Amino acid sequence: MFSEYDVIVVGGGHAGCEAAAAAANMGSSVLLITMNMQTIAQMSCNPAMGGVAKGQIVREIDALGGYSGIVTDKSTLQFRMLNRSKGPAMWSPRAQNDRMQFAAQWRLMLEQTPNVDLWQDMVQNILVEDNRVIGVRTSLGVEIRSKAVVLTNGTFLNGIIHIGQKRFGGGRTGEKAATGLTEQLVSLGFESGRMKTGTPPRIDGRSLDYSQLEEQQGDEDRRGFSFTDVLLPEKQLSCHVAYTSAKVHDILKEGFEDSPMFAGRIKGLGPRYCPSIEDKINRFADKDRHQLFIEPEGWNTVEIYLNGFSTSLPENVQYKALTAIPGFENVKMFRPGYAIEYDYFPPMQLHLSLETKLLANLFFAGQINGTTGYEEAACQGLLAGINAHRKSRGEEELILKRSESYIGVLIDDLVTKGTEEPYRMFTSRAEHRLLLRQDNADVRLSGIGHQLGLISEERMEKVRKKVRDTDFLVDYMRKHAIDPTAVNGLLESKGTSPVKQSARIFNLLTRPQIDLNDLLQVDRAFMETAMGYDRETLEQAEIQVKYESYFSKEEEMVQRMKKMEEHEINPDFDYTQLSSLSKEAREKLGRVKPRTLGQASRISGVSPSDISVLLVHMGR
Amino acid sequence: MFSEYDVIVVGGGHAGCEAAAAAANMGSSVLLITMNMQTIAQMSCNPAMGGVAKGQIVREIDALGGYSGIVTDKSTLQFRMLNRSKGPAMWSPRAQNDRMQFAAQWRLMLEQTPNVDLWQDMVQNILVEDNRVIGVRTSLGVEIRSKAVVLTNGTFLNGIIHIGQKRFGGGRTGEKAATGLTEQLVSLGFESGRMKTGTPPRIDGRSLDYSQLEEQQGDEDRRGFSFTDVLLPEKQLSCHVAYTSAKVHDILKEGFEDSPMFAGRIKGLGPRYCPSIEDKINRFADKDRHQLFIEPEGWNTVEIYLNGFSTSLPENVQYKALTAIPGFENVKMFRPGYAIEYDYFPPMQLHLSLETKLLANLFFAGQINGTTGYEEAACQGLLAGINAHRKSRGEEELILKRSESYIGVLIDDLVTKGTEEPYRMFTSRAEHRLLLRQDNADVRLSGIGHQLGLISEERMEKVRKKVRDTDFLVDYMRKHAIDPTAVNGLLESKGTSPVKQSARIFNLLTRPQIDLNDLLQVDRAFMETAMGYDRETLEQAEIQVKYESYFSKEEEMVQRMKKMEEHEINPDFDYTQLSSLSKEAREKLGRVKPRTLGQASRISGVSPSDISVLLVHMGR
Repeated sequence: MFSEYDVIVVGGGHAGCEAAAAAANMGSSVLLITMNMQTIAQMSCNPAMGGVAKGQIVREIDALGGYSGIVTDKSTLQFRMLNRSKGPAMWSPRAQNDRMQFAAQWRLMLEQTPNVDLWQDMVQNILVEDNRVIGVRTSLGVEIRSKAVVLTNGTFLNGIIHIGQKRFGGGRTGEKAATGLTEQLVSLGFESGRMKTGTPPRIDGRSLDYSQLEEQQGDEDRRGFSFTDVLLPEKQLSCHVAYTSAKVHDILKEGFEDSPMFAGRIKGLGPRYCPSIEDKINRFADKDRHQLFIEPEGWNTVEIYLNGFSTSLPENVQYKALTAIPGFENVKMFRPGYAIEYDYFPPMQLHLSLETKLLANLFFAGQINGTTGYEEAACQGLLAGINAHRKSRGEEELILKRSESYIGVLIDDLVTKGTEEPYRMFTSRAEHRLLLRQDNADVRLSGIGHQLGLISEERMEKVRKKVRDTDFLVDYMRKHAIDPTAVNGLLESKGTSPVKQSARIFNLLTRPQIDLNDLLQVDRAFMETAMGYDRETLEQAEIQVKYESYFSKEEEMVQRMKKMEEHEINPDFDYTQLSSLSKEAREKLGRVKPRTLGQASRISGVSPSDISVLLVHMGR
Repeated sequence: MFSEYDVIVVGGGHAGCEAAAAAANMGSSVLLITMNMQTIAQMSCNPAMGGVAKGQIVREIDALGGYSGIVTDKSTLQFRMLNRSKGPAMWSPRAQNDRMQFAAQWRLMLEQTPNVDLWQDMVQNILVEDNRVIGVRTSLGVEIRSKAVVLTNGTFLNGIIHIGQKRFGGGRTGEKAATGLTEQLVSLGFESGRMKTGTPPRIDGRSLDYSQLEEQQGDEDRRGFSFTDVLLPEKQLSCHVAYTSAKVHDILKEGFEDSPMFAGRIKGLGPRYCPSIEDKINRFADKDRHQLFIEPEGWNTVEIYLNGFSTSLPENVQYKALTAIPGFENVKMFRPGYAIEYDYFPPMQLHLSLETKLLANLFFAGQINGTTGYEEAACQGLLAGINAHRKSRGEEELILKRSESYIGVLIDDLVTKGTEEPYRMFTSRAEHRLLLRQDNADVRLSGIGHQLGLISEERMEKVRKKVRDTDFLVDYMRKHAIDPTAVNGLLESKGTSPVKQSARIFNLLTRPQIDLNDLLQVDRAFMETAMGYDRETLEQAEIQVKYESYFSKEEEMVQRMKKMEEHEINPDFDYTQLSSLSKEAREKLGRVKPRTLGQASRISGVSPSDISVLLVHMGR
């Protein structure tokens, strides 16, 4: 019934959609299998993309030729650049999205991608031959062959939903769980674990008293996620902020005895940085209020997502507590919050390509690897899709470095350190975060996307031009100076010392009080030159100048680490023979099978002296 | 957690949505409970509304103030008036719809209806006190009180999906079945049965060779369903027609041994007039081809619904047979067809108000009553919503007559005759179908909608004006004549005999060869008069004139039947005491509890002599 595919992708969420699109755009024949074609690219959690470190990931996905940025832009309700007051490494784009439009847009883009076929069914088994995956078997009993398989099962593997004392099987409310696959993988030698995540109640926006809430508007100077020119919706919708209170907390505590988490009915660990409201009350007992975000679900719905109020307490406790929130006195609830437990596979079982160590040509991406978050899932999907394609052609895998992308950090963290609780990205996880900015994701990664065939020559030429133009502008600022008479008024008005003789624009711009626009205003020739460049390029040049000293120090660091990162290790190296390694190092190294000395050094339990042993043994 | 509602509606399909909207618009506080708010108003079957007799029902729903017509118009891909070549009683509007837009539009309209609250949960029990329903209990254990409950569970009650030898629990693919409710109702004394329905495979439109298919365009002169002014989408999409062949049939037959129907694994009866393709092959063994309709699923999707190819044969047989259809050589399947079995409650257990006889204030609407079709479900929902509202206020129920609406015919058929196979509407079921036309649904029913509070005064005044204007035009045609010199050229060109002296427009128009437009062209004064009226009114006048003799005969018939229909019977009458009735009549009358002699006469097994006995006994 089906001919053999190059790549089969199992699951139609953020990871699965990116995987399918990437492999297909590189030329693979792809079959995306989903349990329900009606729910492709559902945002199961809040209707938003991006945020701190996550926004950077979406920009990286876009720079590599993934679709998440475009889909996000097309369905944006509101856009904000977070952390604008901090350095550019912290600037983080975030969008609220229309939940329905987001899913519809993904489906549309997938349908418009040649080489992607769709099949609605549940994969129950993978087909294995000689330690290699060769296809899947579905609940209908259909066997479909492929050269590679990407599993992106999200929260569906043996999913169990908890609300108070109630439990239901399900991958999301109203949708069935996926069964059979975990059991088979475990029987094949995989280790599996349980994780937990949750959602807050959905409420009727008409029942809120907005006069008691703080409005949070979108940025006036709005950007998008994609480096392509996506037309952003003209209008924006506001979010609002509310606060819990001691009274809200007291009501919630009444439900603690029925809490599936506190009673131990939920075994899996939840996301530490996206805790349930009951968790927050417990862990931060001294805080007498927590912030809640009232996020609209779309342009044309009154439904509201109450971000920050994730809970699995009984629905009547949820409701009673909601009514105690100022502004929520007459609240109506549409759907209760719930927790969901699901199977994941500890990611140290993966190569850095996201291929499993146990079975060749089998790739894992998304929550199945123990991550949380749409962005984390999507970028893994993209990489798994790319590598499934390349593996099926016998080509070398793509491994992104920690020094060039958050995606590289994420995958290296997962594979090298593993994770026992849902892993989410933070800027602090990236040792080179100064270089991994949202503004330069295109410069960092488009070349790779172009080589892969995911970024067109036209788009690549735009990036090259941006680099050339930025260099030109920085160079211009190095060469040109401004007279004291022209600039001193500005400097004094900004509270920084005047200059005695003409000063290079570059030097003036490094002063924290001064920005590019100030200098353009006082130097007509510079203004005339600058007018030939777009906003993105000017901003890029400004960032380059302002933070040059930091960036160059960071670059030096990267260069110094590079030797370690480039020092490759044979993944099949037998560490048991190296008796001078500590016992723990021998065991961990054997398990992780690091590809470089750099990766080896990041394994917890591998000490600097173990690294010295390796260095000596491998005869530098 | 919940205060008491006037009306709780269980289920968010066509029936549930109409029920909720109607009750709320009449002033009830309404809670709509659905298992998944993401799938409200999903078209589970083909993406189309209306058709023969069904289109009339949608127009009736609209005339009564229901939403189905408006939702249909807003999401129309293509509109056709079927049976244009036949008499106006056969004219039947039919629209293809964008499946996503249809559901989104329904949800939007419900959210914009004050008094409708939403709750995502599964109702497992009803709450009963003194043979009266007083609320529901959900799978979360929530008890919610109400004055009335409307059950519209569709195919979800103990739903089982069949594909070949495979069986899954589910209300639709990927969605869970609803459990608990049937068992409780049976324990309370209700009789339940099983029915079956099915869907065809969904396919990838890109994989078809359209050059081998017949195109079917929408009407140029396009109408809408709603009598309100809904802006119709500007463009239309074409459908296409394909044909099965002996070869297709032979392939399908190979799968018959795995057929869940033929093997007896499916016990429920399927819809006779919407049979599966395997049924058609079996029942019409002499036909060597069957027509298939390629229906697009929406504006922005390549997915296709293959109407006419409903099947529960194994998916590989489905696929193989598809490839043998001319134009389908390279077909790709997205989702296989399947059959679904579900619980229904034989509808003789209902009053004509759709309230159950066993439990007061409990109403059933839609497939739970053994019907098939969106339109049949929606109109029952509307009536159940209306009557749930009225019952909760202690007001008299609304019962539509067979002589005034298809809706009346449908409910009277269900309640009086019951049904053992999925009931769908046909024009032939309506003895007064000449009067029950799509063009006069507003004239027939808006007054009732207005009295109920579902049709605004402004809208009602438009209907009154239409009636006045039509009467004026008909009267004008009766009074005014055209000269032979002016009209004979037309008459001869149309092949009908010329007139010798001036002839009344009315008389000329009754000639089948002549239409209103012809006469307007040859009579300037008439044309000038007509220009003051809209298309609908002119058409109405034309129909009135052309078919006047038929209509007046039909009206006489209605009047003659009226006595029987108006002769009320005490529903609690004890038929066992009337020994002169036949045994079968005694039993059936006791079960159906007819409200009028007319209804009694339609019960199968009640003979004219039984009616005479009743007439005599009830002392006319």
